[in-house]
Amino acid sequence: MTHTTYDELSKKMKEVRLLSNCSSILGWDMRTYMPSEGIEQRGEALSTLGKITHVKMTDPQIGKLISQCSGLEKIQQRNVELWKRDYDRETKIPADLVIRLTKQSTKTEGKWYEAKRKQDFGLVKPDLEILLELVKERAQALDAEKPMYDVLLDEYEPKMTAAGINSYFTPLRDGVIKLIKKYQDAVADNPPDISIFDKNIPVDAQKHVSKWIMNFLGLPPNRSRVDEAEHPFTTGYAKDVRITTHYQEDPTAAIYSTFHEGGHALYNLNTPEEHWYTAVGDTVSMGIHESQSRFCENIVGKNPTFLKNFYPNVVQKYMPAFQSVDTDTFIKSVNAIIPSKIRIYADEVTYNLHIILRFEIEQDLIAGKISVAELPSIWNDKMEKYLGMKIENDAEGVLQDTHWYAGLFGYFPTYALGNIYNSQMLATMKTSIPNWEEQLASGDFSKIRNWLVSNVHNKGSLYDPIDLMEKICNQPPDTKYFLDYLNEKYRSIYNL
Amino acid sequence: MTHTTYDELSKKMKEVRLLSNCSSILGWDMRTYMPSEGIEQRGEALSTLGKITHVKMTDPQIGKLISQCSGLEKIQQRNVELWKRDYDRETKIPADLVIRLTKQSTKTEGKWYEAKRKQDFGLVKPDLEILLELVKERAQALDAEKPMYDVLLDEYEPKMTAAGINSYFTPLRDGVIKLIKKYQDAVADNPPDISIFDKNIPVDAQKHVSKWIMNFLGLPPNRSRVDEAEHPFTTGYAKDVRITTHYQEDPTAAIYSTFHEGGHALYNLNTPEEHWYTAVGDTVSMGIHESQSRFCENIVGKNPTFLKNFYPNVVQKYMPAFQSVDTDTFIKSVNAIIPSKIRIYADEVTYNLHIILRFEIEQDLIAGKISVAELPSIWNDKMEKYLGMKIENDAEGVLQDTHWYAGLFGYFPTYALGNIYNSQMLATMKTSIPNWEEQLASGDFSKIRNWLVSNVHNKGSLYDPIDLMEKICNQPPDTKYFLDYLNEKYRSIYNL
Repeated sequence: MTHTTYDELSKKMKEVRLLSNCSSILGWDMRTYMPSEGIEQRGEALSTLGKITHVKMTDPQIGKLISQCSGLEKIQQRNVELWKRDYDRETKIPADLVIRLTKQSTKTEGKWYEAKRKQDFGLVKPDLEILLELVKERAQALDAEKPMYDVLLDEYEPKMTAAGINSYFTPLRDGVIKLIKKYQDAVADNPPDISIFDKNIPVDAQKHVSKWIMNFLGLPPNRSRVDEAEHPFTTGYAKDVRITTHYQEDPTAAIYSTFHEGGHALYNLNTPEEHWYTAVGDTVSMGIHESQSRFCENIVGKNPTFLKNFYPNVVQKYMPAFQSVDTDTFIKSVNAIIPSKIRIYADEVTYNLHIILRFEIEQDLIAGKISVAELPSIWNDKMEKYLGMKIENDAEGVLQDTHWYAGLFGYFPTYALGNIYNSQMLATMKTSIPNWEEQLASGDFSKIRNWLVSNVHNKGSLYDPIDLMEKICNQPPDTKYFLDYLNEKYRSIYNL
Repeated sequence: MTHTTYDELSKKMKEVRLLSNCSSILGWDMRTYMPSEGIEQRGEALSTLGKITHVKMTDPQIGKLISQCSGLEKIQQRNVELWKRDYDRETKIPADLVIRLTKQSTKTEGKWYEAKRKQDFGLVKPDLEILLELVKERAQALDAEKPMYDVLLDEYEPKMTAAGINSYFTPLRDGVIKLIKKYQDAVADNPPDISIFDKNIPVDAQKHVSKWIMNFLGLPPNRSRVDEAEHPFTTGYAKDVRITTHYQEDPTAAIYSTFHEGGHALYNLNTPEEHWYTAVGDTVSMGIHESQSRFCENIVGKNPTFLKNFYPNVVQKYMPAFQSVDTDTFIKSVNAIIPSKIRIYADEVTYNLHIILRFEIEQDLIAGKISVAELPSIWNDKMEKYLGMKIENDAEGVLQDTHWYAGLFGYFPTYALGNIYNSQMLATMKTSIPNWEEQLASGDFSKIRNWLVSNVHNKGSLYDPIDLMEKICNQPPDTKYFLDYLNEKYRSIYNL
């Protein structure tokens, strides 16, 4: 009887999962191959599909089945717990609020495009104010008891709180600022030359390198593919997972996008197959996802030992224009600590300050401590304080990212959590693969990949992210490992 | 009140149309870019989407709205009439029959692959027998009063009957056989050399020619695209219509697939925009669709006057291997009347005999005059009688096409109807564009395209196919025009 109830529930949830897979692939198509005029039609098709998925997900029958399940095995229990979490979330938000939010975020994102182009925050301010109120209304509907920011965070990183993030980000900020100061003189004595990347490399050569990276990471061609999109992303599920990259004059844009998205793809491909189409068979959180992408991008792709092999044997081979640049120069430039006004162009060290800045601002905004009108000036002040950058206009300041204008508040911290998680994973991994860098130097990622697969990917959503970290590392997340990792890396690059 | 009813109905039907667009694009992806291992997952996703679309289409609320509509304008009335036709069809078939049919046709098609590979009809015979009974059961459910074959035909070519088809196909068969005999000696004296096509042309050169054809036909890059698939097809709707072609050693495979699918695409792109997402905004039938594809493929793409320009300026330009073959040889070889065992490789003349053969057999099969077991021998006898071809094994005989094994009976005649329709359209078009061949020779398709758009494409589903033909040509379909077209063409090629 109970078995039948659980099976019926699983069947309904599989249907929802399949529909969301349809939306993913249609979204992928929209950003890669769709003829440009198809955009409006696709918007309507995706919104129809989205509405149907929402109706299926909030079917009262699902609530009933959830409440009737009993006598389950451990993994079945976990599935029901996760499904209940999603069901409660979806049903708590009034239908009219969903519609108002969708419309307002679409409208605000449209205004954001215009505001960014015209470098004028004022153009999007009134809509952002309305959107912010709707986002808060939604948080209230989800849980009126909890602090609103914690409610928002929980959607991207289950069980995470602002207090938890603060406990990671405070030492992160201090440690990163200290590291920047420490290497200030060494960097000045031996300045990295990022102009070496302006090579105008042919797209075909960049495509060859992307394919090489896919193969190196272990992304099988019969279950994955790489295409081009303006903003790189990863999508797909189970046996069909796709990454996109972009080919620019500076080939490191494609190289590191491919490493980054390749990391996301590995995770998507290796969740536990026996639990696919159930909640446990999905990836667990944005933070853990980002830990995998940044593991491949930074810990692997920018590792000096790895680069000593990859640079001459792959980069120089496919891109002869680099033959005049020696390996050490490339390593220093790829790992250059050079503050940027723009988050997505930031280096591995200063990147975290961009995230901390956003985290601080969005917390205050949600708490009502600051107003939407104050955003540009607060943004610019913090940029000057944390990164010493003077913001000249809103396009390179508060308008640079789309997240807030799409209604995504509480999302940014996961980008830095990924760094914290993955360096701690690395510390644990080193105890079982002490020669991990030699492996990379020999062009072999398989042992490292296997470790990630069995410790992270294969766990799917069996544990919430913090619990997963404890299972893997035998201790809760701790920023120390990331700072150690950075310090060790830069010590080796600058021989200090 | 009535206005609201119609609007509500339109909204529901638009939703169905958008869902079927989602399925089309996911089907396109499956046949072009999807990693091979994704097939099972995609099958499940498409079947989930199919079930949802069916539920939406058979929603009793739609039946109610249809019956409540009144006081409509002419086009609204036509929409309601077409929606009722679809609704009645979808609701008349019991749900369990839909499931049994889907399962049995999937199973039979699987067996067909195996049977074709092993050249053994016996392997698929038992499943084809079951499938045939289900197809007949379905026809009975749709309309127990009408002859079963007419019910099946009506699904692909509304209002068409076996008697109607017979009235076209009898003179078609006689005329084609007469034509073959007439040119027998001329062809023997001056035999076409199809070995000239075995050139192993690089795929890139073939892609350039495909792009040239897309541009020539007037398929705008912001609303269409061309990709590669094993079996060429066209899909998409409104502002996003896609064709596929295939690149083989013989480049005419790609050239004529692109012309053919380009014709389908032009039709899909040019249905009346003001009626998109309603029934009137869709293409009307398989026969009319095929008339457009074969117009571009044969009437345009194989036209000697057109080839006098296209061959030296496009084929020879992009494919230097053809520089040793003169224009006249190419024209004769592209238009060679050489009987083939395989329908899809048949020339413009003998192609029709392949269709007539299938039409005769499937009619007798549905009527119970012949059994599934007799299919191979009856097939082989007719091939010898109509085309003088001796079939050595079932793979090159009754197993060559997938249609019957996928449950598609009544579909084949539309391929030949397309030829009958388009040559009659051509006869009408000539009265307003007498210099149509000169236009083609100068590389200008715009006037011809505009004629097709305003007379055929822009009519959408406003009229049933036979009525549409009467509107365009001021008379019902008549095979005479196709035979005249063929005779005139071959007279000019062989100077007889």
